[in-house]
Amino acid sequence: MIETLSVNVSGQGLHDITKSVSDLVSSMTSSNDREGLCTLFIQHTSASLLIQENYDPAVCHDLEAWLKRLVPEDEALYTHTQEGPDDMPAHIKSALTAVSLSIPILDSQLALGTWQGIFLWEHRHHRGKRKIVVHLV
Amino acid sequence: MIETLSVNVSGQGLHDITKSVSDLVSSMTSSNDREGLCTLFIQHTSASLLIQENYDPAVCHDLEAWLKRLVPEDEALYTHTQEGPDDMPAHIKSALTAVSLSIPILDSQLALGTWQGIFLWEHRHHRGKRKIVVHLV
Amino acid sequence: MIETLSVNVSGQGLHDITKSVSDLVSSMTSSNDREGLCTLFIQHTSASLLIQENYDPAVCHDLEAWLKRLVPEDEALYTHTQEGPDDMPAHIKSALTAVSLSIPILDSQLALGTWQGIFLWEHRHHRGKRKIVVHLV
Repeated sequence: MIETLSVNVSGQGLHDITKSVSDLVSSMTSSNDREGLCTLFIQHTSASLLIQENYDPAVCHDLEAWLKRLVPEDEALYTHTQEGPDDMPAHIKSALTAVSLSIPILDSQLALGTWQGIFLWEHRHHRGKRKIVVHLV
Repeated sequence: MIETLSVNVSGQGLHDITKSVSDLVSSMTSSNDREGLCTLFIQHTSASLLIQENYDPAVCHDLEAWLKRLVPEDEALYTHTQEGPDDMPAHIKSALTAVSLSIPILDSQLALGTWQGIFLWEHRHHRGKRKIVVHLV
Repeated sequence: MIETLSVNVSGQGLHDITKSVSDLVSSMTSSNDREGLCTLFIQHTSASLLIQENYDPAVCHDLEAWLKRLVPEDEALYTHTQEGPDDMPAHIKSALTAVSLSIPILDSQLALGTWQGIFLWEHRHHRGKRKIVVHLV
Protein backbone atom coordinates (compact mmCIF):
# COMPACT_ATOMS: atom_id res chain seq x y z
CA MET A 1 0.00 0.00 0.00
CA ILE A 2 2.92 2.37 0.71
CA GLU A 3 6.45 2.34 -0.70
CA THR A 4 9.22 4.92 -0.74
CA LEU A 5 10.91 5.91 -3.97
CA SER A 6 14.45 7.22 -3.75
CA VAL A 7 15.46 9.50 -6.63
CA ASN A 8 19.04 10.50 -7.48
CA VAL A 9 19.12 14.11 -8.63
CA SER A 10 22.01 15.46 -10.67
CA GLY A 11 21.30 19.10 -9.77
CA GLN A 12 18.74 21.86 -10.28
CA GLY A 13 15.99 21.19 -12.82
CA LEU A 14 13.30 18.73 -13.88
CA HIS A 15 13.97 14.99 -13.52
CA ASP A 16 11.56 12.65 -15.34
CA ILE A 17 10.43 9.97 -12.87
CA THR A 18 7.48 8.63 -14.89
CA LYS A 19 9.06 5.20 -15.46
CA SER A 20 10.21 4.80 -11.84
CA VAL A 21 6.74 5.63 -10.53
CA SER A 22 5.04 3.45 -13.12
CA ASP A 23 7.33 0.47 -12.41
CA LEU A 24 6.79 0.86 -8.66
CA VAL A 25 3.01 0.99 -9.11
CA SER A 26 3.15 -2.20 -11.25
CA SER A 27 5.15 -3.97 -8.55
CA MET A 28 2.61 -2.93 -5.89
CA THR A 29 -0.53 -4.02 -7.77
CA SER A 30 -1.83 -7.32 -9.11
CA SER A 31 -3.52 -7.63 -12.49
CA ASN A 32 -6.85 -7.64 -10.63
CA ASP A 33 -6.32 -4.10 -9.35
CA ARG A 34 -7.64 -2.39 -12.43
CA GLU A 35 -8.73 0.84 -10.75
CA GLY A 36 -7.18 2.84 -7.95
CA LEU A 37 -5.48 6.04 -6.92
CA CYS A 38 -1.75 6.67 -6.64
CA THR A 39 -0.68 9.54 -4.38
CA LEU A 40 2.87 10.86 -4.42
CA PHE A 41 4.25 12.91 -1.53
CA ILE A 42 7.73 14.44 -1.57
CA GLN A 43 9.39 14.63 1.86
CA HIS A 44 11.34 17.83 1.17
CA THR A 45 10.82 21.58 1.24
CA SER A 46 13.22 22.55 -1.55
CA ALA A 47 12.12 20.13 -4.27
CA SER A 48 8.63 19.50 -5.63
CA LEU A 49 6.46 17.37 -7.93
CA LEU A 50 5.20 18.35 -11.34
CA ILE A 51 3.19 16.81 -14.14
CA GLN A 52 4.20 18.36 -17.45
CA GLU A 53 4.77 17.72 -21.12
CA ASN A 54 7.50 15.11 -21.58
CA TYR A 55 7.79 15.30 -25.36
CA ASP A 56 9.80 18.44 -26.18
CA PRO A 57 12.73 19.00 -23.76
CA ALA A 58 12.47 22.74 -24.53
CA VAL A 59 9.34 22.85 -22.32
CA CYS A 60 11.36 21.73 -19.28
CA HIS A 61 14.12 24.20 -20.16
CA ASP A 62 11.68 27.11 -20.42
CA LEU A 63 9.85 26.16 -17.20
CA GLU A 64 13.14 26.13 -15.31
CA ALA A 65 14.33 29.42 -16.85
CA TRP A 66 11.00 31.17 -16.20
CA LEU A 67 10.84 30.10 -12.53
CA LYS A 68 14.47 31.14 -11.98
CA ARG A 69 13.66 34.61 -13.25
CA LEU A 70 10.54 34.83 -11.05
CA VAL A 71 12.42 33.71 -7.92
CA PRO A 72 15.97 35.03 -8.27
CA GLU A 73 18.96 34.08 -6.14
CA ASP A 74 19.34 37.57 -4.80
CA GLU A 75 20.35 37.54 -1.16
CA ALA A 76 19.19 41.13 -0.64
CA LEU A 77 15.59 39.87 -0.89
CA TYR A 78 15.86 37.25 1.86
CA THR A 79 16.64 37.04 5.57
CA HIS A 80 17.03 33.22 5.59
CA THR A 81 20.44 33.11 3.90
CA GLN A 82 22.70 30.94 6.08
CA GLU A 83 22.09 27.78 4.00
CA GLY A 84 23.31 29.39 0.78
CA PRO A 85 21.88 31.67 -1.92
CA ASP A 86 19.86 28.86 -3.54
CA ASP A 87 18.07 27.77 -0.34
CA MET A 88 15.38 30.43 0.19
CA PRO A 89 14.51 30.57 -3.55
CA ALA A 90 14.14 26.76 -3.38
CA HIS A 91 11.61 27.07 -0.53
CA ILE A 92 9.61 29.67 -2.49
CA LYS A 93 9.64 27.55 -5.66
CA SER A 94 8.42 24.58 -3.63
CA ALA A 95 5.60 26.67 -2.15
CA LEU A 96 4.44 27.60 -5.68
CA THR A 97 4.43 24.00 -6.92
CA ALA A 98 3.16 20.65 -5.60
CA VAL A 99 4.25 18.64 -2.57
CA SER A 100 1.59 15.98 -3.27
CA LEU A 101 -0.07 14.71 -6.46
CA SER A 102 -2.85 12.15 -6.92
CA ILE A 103 -3.08 10.19 -10.17
CA PRO A 104 -5.93 7.75 -10.85
CA ILE A 105 -5.14 4.20 -11.99
CA LEU A 106 -7.19 2.86 -14.90
CA ASP A 107 -6.70 -0.54 -16.53
CA SER A 108 -3.88 -1.16 -14.03
CA GLN A 109 -1.95 1.87 -15.32
CA LEU A 110 -1.43 5.49 -14.28
CA ALA A 111 -4.16 7.43 -16.12
CA LEU A 112 -1.78 10.07 -17.47
CA GLY A 113 -2.73 12.06 -20.56
CA THR A 114 -0.88 11.42 -23.83
CA TRP A 115 1.76 14.08 -23.25
CA GLN A 116 1.97 13.97 -19.46
CA GLY A 117 5.10 12.91 -17.61
CA ILE A 118 5.81 13.01 -13.86
CA PHE A 119 8.80 15.07 -12.78
CA LEU A 120 10.75 15.70 -9.62
CA TRP A 121 11.63 19.38 -9.71
CA GLU A 122 14.88 19.92 -7.85
CA HIS A 123 15.25 23.55 -6.77
CA ARG A 124 18.73 23.38 -5.21
CA HIS A 125 22.06 23.08 -7.01
CA HIS A 126 23.37 20.02 -5.20
CA ARG A 127 23.44 16.43 -6.37
CA GLY A 128 21.86 13.97 -3.99
CA LYS A 129 18.90 11.78 -3.11
CA ARG A 130 15.27 12.83 -2.69
CA LYS A 131 12.52 10.66 -1.20
CA ILE A 132 8.96 10.35 -2.45
CA VAL A 133 6.36 8.35 -0.51
CA VAL A 134 3.97 6.50 -2.83
CA HIS A 135 0.54 5.51 -1.53
CA LEU A 136 -1.88 3.25 -3.41
CA VAL A 137 -5.53 2.65 -2.70
CA MET B 1 -15.12 4.23 -8.68
CA ILE B 2 -13.62 6.07 -11.67
CA GLU B 3 -15.36 8.08 -14.39
CA THR B 4 -14.10 10.52 -16.99
CA LEU B 5 -15.64 13.95 -17.33
CA SER B 6 -15.40 15.63 -20.71
CA VAL B 7 -15.58 19.44 -20.61
CA ASN B 8 -16.21 21.70 -23.58
CA VAL B 9 -14.11 24.83 -23.29
CA SER B 10 -14.96 27.98 -25.19
CA GLY B 11 -11.45 29.43 -24.95
CA GLN B 12 -8.98 30.83 -22.43
CA GLY B 13 -10.27 31.45 -18.91
CA LEU B 14 -12.11 29.89 -15.98
CA HIS B 15 -14.96 27.45 -16.68
CA ASP B 16 -17.20 26.59 -13.72
CA ILE B 17 -17.56 22.79 -13.57
CA THR B 18 -19.04 22.55 -10.05
CA LYS B 19 -22.41 21.24 -11.24
CA SER B 20 -20.90 18.71 -13.67
CA VAL B 21 -18.62 17.30 -10.98
CA SER B 22 -21.37 17.31 -8.39
CA ASP B 23 -23.85 15.55 -10.73
CA LEU B 24 -21.23 12.95 -11.66
CA VAL B 25 -20.44 12.28 -7.99
CA SER B 26 -24.18 11.83 -7.25
CA SER B 27 -24.49 9.34 -10.11
CA MET B 28 -21.50 7.37 -8.79
CA THR B 29 -22.64 7.12 -5.16
CA SER B 30 -25.61 5.60 -3.39
CA SER B 31 -27.39 7.36 -0.53
CA ASN B 32 -25.47 5.07 1.85
CA ASP B 33 -22.12 6.56 0.80
CA ARG B 34 -22.28 9.49 3.15
CA GLU B 35 -18.53 10.02 3.49
CA GLY B 36 -15.73 9.71 0.98
CA LEU B 37 -13.10 11.50 -1.06
CA CYS B 38 -13.41 12.75 -4.62
CA THR B 39 -10.14 13.25 -6.51
CA LEU B 40 -10.04 15.14 -9.82
CA PHE B 41 -7.13 14.75 -12.22
CA ILE B 42 -6.86 16.74 -15.45
CA GLN B 43 -5.13 14.86 -18.29
CA HIS B 44 -3.55 17.94 -19.89
CA THR B 45 -0.47 20.13 -19.50
CA SER B 46 -1.96 23.42 -20.67
CA ALA B 47 -5.14 23.54 -18.57
CA SER B 48 -5.53 23.11 -14.82
CA LEU B 49 -7.97 22.79 -11.91
CA LEU B 50 -8.87 25.53 -9.45
CA ILE B 51 -11.18 25.99 -6.52
CA GLN B 52 -12.16 29.63 -6.21
CA GLU B 53 -14.93 32.03 -5.35
CA ASN B 54 -17.91 31.48 -7.63
CA TYR B 55 -20.04 34.40 -6.48
CA ASP B 56 -18.61 37.55 -8.08
CA PRO B 57 -17.49 36.99 -11.72
CA ALA B 58 -14.99 39.85 -11.24
CA VAL B 59 -12.84 37.45 -9.19
CA CYS B 60 -12.43 35.12 -12.21
CA HIS B 61 -11.73 38.10 -14.46
CA ASP B 62 -9.03 39.45 -12.15
CA LEU B 63 -7.42 36.03 -11.66
CA GLU B 64 -7.18 35.57 -15.42
CA ALA B 65 -5.82 39.09 -15.99
CA TRP B 66 -3.25 38.78 -13.21
CA LEU B 67 -1.90 35.43 -14.42
CA LYS B 68 -1.70 36.73 -18.00
CA ARG B 69 0.45 39.61 -16.82
CA LEU B 70 2.69 37.29 -14.78
CA VAL B 71 3.17 34.85 -17.68
CA PRO B 72 3.08 36.94 -20.87
CA GLU B 73 2.82 35.67 -24.43
CA ASP B 74 6.20 37.04 -25.36
CA GLU B 75 8.04 34.68 -27.66
CA ALA B 76 11.40 36.26 -26.86
CA LEU B 77 11.21 34.62 -23.41
CA TYR B 78 10.72 31.06 -24.65
CA THR B 79 12.51 28.47 -26.80
CA HIS B 80 9.46 26.15 -27.10
CA THR B 81 7.53 28.26 -29.62
CA GLN B 82 6.54 25.95 -32.49
CA GLU B 83 3.05 25.28 -31.08
CA GLY B 84 2.12 28.97 -31.00
CA PRO B 85 2.68 31.94 -28.70
CA ASP B 86 0.08 30.74 -26.15
CA ASP B 87 1.55 27.25 -25.69
CA MET B 88 4.59 27.78 -23.47
CA PRO B 89 2.75 30.33 -21.25
CA ALA B 90 0.00 27.68 -20.90
CA HIS B 91 2.53 25.10 -19.65
CA ILE B 92 3.91 27.59 -17.11
CA LYS B 93 0.43 28.54 -15.89
CA SER B 94 -0.38 24.84 -15.48
CA ALA B 95 2.81 24.30 -13.47
CA LEU B 96 1.77 27.10 -11.08
CA THR B 97 -1.74 25.71 -10.52
CA ALA B 98 -3.24 22.28 -9.79
CA VAL B 99 -3.31 19.12 -11.93
CA SER B 100 -5.10 17.18 -9.16
CA LEU B 101 -7.52 18.21 -6.38
CA SER B 102 -9.06 16.12 -3.60
CA ILE B 103 -12.40 17.15 -2.12
CA PRO B 104 -13.96 15.27 0.83
CA ILE B 105 -17.56 14.08 0.59
CA LEU B 106 -19.78 14.74 3.61
CA ASP B 107 -23.49 13.88 3.84
CA SER B 108 -23.20 12.49 0.28
CA GLN B 109 -22.11 15.90 -1.05
CA LEU B 110 -18.85 17.58 -2.00
CA ALA B 111 -17.71 19.37 1.19
CA LEU B 112 -17.09 22.70 -0.53
CA GLY B 113 -17.10 25.91 1.48
CA THR B 114 -19.95 28.38 1.02
CA TRP B 115 -18.21 30.40 -1.70
CA GLN B 116 -16.15 27.67 -3.32
CA GLY B 117 -16.70 26.55 -6.90
CA ILE B 118 -14.63 24.12 -8.98
CA PHE B 119 -13.16 25.51 -12.19
CA LEU B 120 -11.32 24.17 -15.20
CA TRP B 121 -8.75 26.84 -16.04
CA GLU B 122 -8.07 26.76 -19.76
CA HIS B 123 -4.74 28.40 -20.58
CA ARG B 124 -4.84 28.14 -24.38
CA HIS B 125 -6.95 30.20 -26.78
CA HIS B 126 -8.60 27.32 -28.62
CA ARG B 127 -12.09 25.92 -28.19
CA GLY B 128 -12.19 22.19 -27.57
CA LYS B 129 -12.64 19.34 -25.14
CA ARG B 130 -10.67 18.67 -21.97
CA LYS B 131 -10.77 15.44 -19.96
CA ILE B 132 -10.85 15.12 -16.18
CA VAL B 133 -10.60 11.72 -14.49
CA VAL B 134 -12.79 11.54 -11.36
CA HIS B 135 -11.91 8.99 -8.67
CA LEU B 136 -14.14 8.23 -5.67
CA VAL B 137 -13.25 6.30 -2.56
CA MET C 1 -13.10 8.86 8.56
CA ILE C 2 -13.80 12.62 8.30
CA GLU C 3 -13.39 15.36 10.90
CA THR C 4 -13.32 19.13 10.67
CA LEU C 5 -10.47 21.12 12.16
CA SER C 6 -11.20 24.68 13.19
CA VAL C 7 -8.15 26.97 13.24
CA ASN C 8 -7.98 30.38 14.92
CA VAL C 9 -5.91 32.75 12.81
CA SER C 10 -4.36 35.87 14.28
CA GLY C 11 -3.99 37.61 10.93
CA GLN C 12 -2.08 37.38 7.64
CA GLY C 13 0.76 34.87 7.49
CA LEU C 14 1.74 31.26 8.10
CA HIS C 15 0.17 29.41 11.03
CA ASP C 16 1.79 26.09 12.01
CA ILE C 17 -0.96 23.46 12.35
CA THR C 18 1.27 20.36 12.38
CA LYS C 19 0.42 19.43 15.97
CA SER C 20 -3.33 20.01 15.55
CA VAL C 21 -3.44 17.83 12.44
CA SER C 22 -1.23 15.18 13.99
CA ASP C 23 -3.32 15.05 17.20
CA LEU C 24 -6.54 14.81 15.18
CA VAL C 25 -5.12 11.98 13.07
CA SER C 26 -4.10 10.11 16.24
CA SER C 27 -7.60 10.49 17.66
CA MET C 28 -9.12 9.13 14.42
CA THR C 29 -6.90 6.04 14.11
CA SER C 30 -6.27 2.97 16.22
CA SER C 31 -2.80 1.51 16.73
CA ASN C 32 -3.68 -1.12 14.09
CA ASP C 33 -3.99 1.54 11.37
CA ARG C 34 -0.31 1.64 10.56
CA GLU C 35 -0.67 2.82 6.96
CA GLY C 36 -3.08 5.23 5.34
CA LEU C 37 -3.56 8.58 3.65
CA CYS C 38 -4.57 11.85 5.28
CA THR C 39 -6.13 14.46 2.97
CA LEU C 40 -6.61 18.05 4.10
CA PHE C 41 -9.05 20.36 2.33
CA ILE C 42 -9.45 24.03 3.28
CA GLN C 43 -12.99 25.37 2.80
CA HIS C 44 -11.95 28.92 1.89
CA THR C 45 -10.81 30.89 -1.15
CA SER C 46 -8.57 33.41 0.61
CA ALA C 47 -6.45 31.07 2.75
CA SER C 48 -4.50 27.99 1.70
CA LEU C 49 -2.43 25.01 2.86
CA LEU C 50 1.34 24.71 2.71
CA ILE C 51 3.99 22.24 3.71
CA GLN C 52 7.24 24.05 4.43
CA GLU C 53 10.30 24.16 6.63
CA ASN C 54 9.29 24.62 10.27
CA TYR C 55 12.76 25.01 11.74
CA ASP C 56 13.91 28.56 10.97
CA PRO C 57 11.08 31.16 11.35
CA ALA C 58 12.93 33.33 8.80
CA VAL C 59 11.71 30.94 6.07
CA CYS C 60 8.06 31.76 6.88
CA HIS C 61 8.88 35.46 7.04
CA ASP C 62 10.58 35.42 3.64
CA LEU C 63 7.80 33.36 2.02
CA GLU C 64 5.21 35.85 3.23
CA ALA C 65 7.26 38.89 2.14
CA TRP C 66 8.00 37.42 -1.29
CA LEU C 67 4.35 36.55 -2.02
CA LYS C 68 3.22 40.01 -0.86
CA ARG C 69 5.58 41.59 -3.35
CA LEU C 70 4.40 39.29 -6.16
CA VAL C 71 0.71 39.97 -5.45
CA PRO C 72 0.50 43.55 -4.20
CA GLU C 73 -2.49 45.24 -2.59
CA ASP C 74 -2.83 47.71 -5.40
CA GLU C 75 -6.46 48.41 -6.19
CA ALA C 76 -5.61 49.77 -9.64
CA LEU C 77 -4.84 46.19 -10.73
CA TYR C 78 -8.19 44.71 -9.73
CA THR C 79 -11.89 45.11 -10.53
CA HIS C 80 -13.08 42.99 -7.55
CA THR C 81 -12.45 45.61 -4.86
CA GLN C 82 -15.63 45.92 -2.81
CA GLU C 83 -14.45 43.49 -0.12
CA GLY C 84 -11.33 45.51 0.67
CA PRO C 85 -7.82 45.90 -0.79
CA ASP C 86 -6.61 42.58 0.67
CA ASP C 87 -9.42 40.44 -0.79
CA MET C 88 -8.49 40.05 -4.46
CA PRO C 89 -4.77 39.54 -3.65
CA ALA C 90 -5.90 36.83 -1.19
CA HIS C 91 -7.81 35.01 -3.96
CA ILE C 92 -4.76 35.15 -6.25
CA LYS C 93 -2.43 33.90 -3.50
CA SER C 94 -4.85 31.03 -2.84
CA ALA C 95 -4.90 30.14 -6.54
CA LEU C 96 -1.09 29.90 -6.55
CA THR C 97 -0.96 27.62 -3.49
CA ALA C 98 -2.80 24.50 -2.31
CA VAL C 99 -6.46 24.02 -1.38
CA SER C 100 -5.90 20.28 -0.75
CA LEU C 101 -2.89 18.25 0.40
CA SER C 102 -2.48 14.49 0.81
CA ILE C 103 0.02 13.12 3.31
CA PRO C 104 0.67 9.37 3.66
CA ILE C 105 0.51 7.75 7.10
CA LEU C 106 3.36 5.37 7.98
CA ASP C 107 3.77 3.59 11.34
CA SER C 108 0.56 5.34 12.45
CA GLN C 109 2.13 8.80 11.91
CA LEU C 110 2.06 11.48 9.21
CA ALA C 111 5.01 10.63 6.93
CA LEU C 112 6.41 14.16 6.94
CA GLY C 113 10.08 14.75 6.12
CA THR C 114 12.43 15.83 8.91
CA TRP C 115 11.99 19.56 8.30
CA GLN C 116 8.41 19.58 7.07
CA GLY C 117 5.60 21.29 8.95
CA ILE C 118 1.98 21.83 7.87
CA PHE C 119 0.82 25.44 7.71
CA LEU C 120 -2.42 27.28 7.17
CA TRP C 121 -1.52 30.31 5.07
CA GLU C 122 -3.90 33.13 5.87
CA HIS C 123 -3.96 35.71 3.06
CA ARG C 124 -6.34 38.26 4.61
CA HIS C 125 -5.61 40.68 7.44
CA HIS C 126 -8.48 39.73 9.71
CA ARG C 127 -8.44 37.52 12.79
CA GLY C 128 -10.94 34.70 12.72
CA LYS C 129 -11.62 31.02 12.25
CA ARG C 130 -10.79 28.86 9.23
CA LYS C 131 -12.09 25.33 8.64
CA ILE C 132 -10.12 22.39 7.28
CA VAL C 133 -11.82 19.09 6.46
CA VAL C 134 -9.60 16.11 7.29
CA HIS C 135 -10.23 12.80 5.50
CA LEU C 136 -8.51 9.53 6.43
CA VAL C 137 -8.43 6.33 4.47
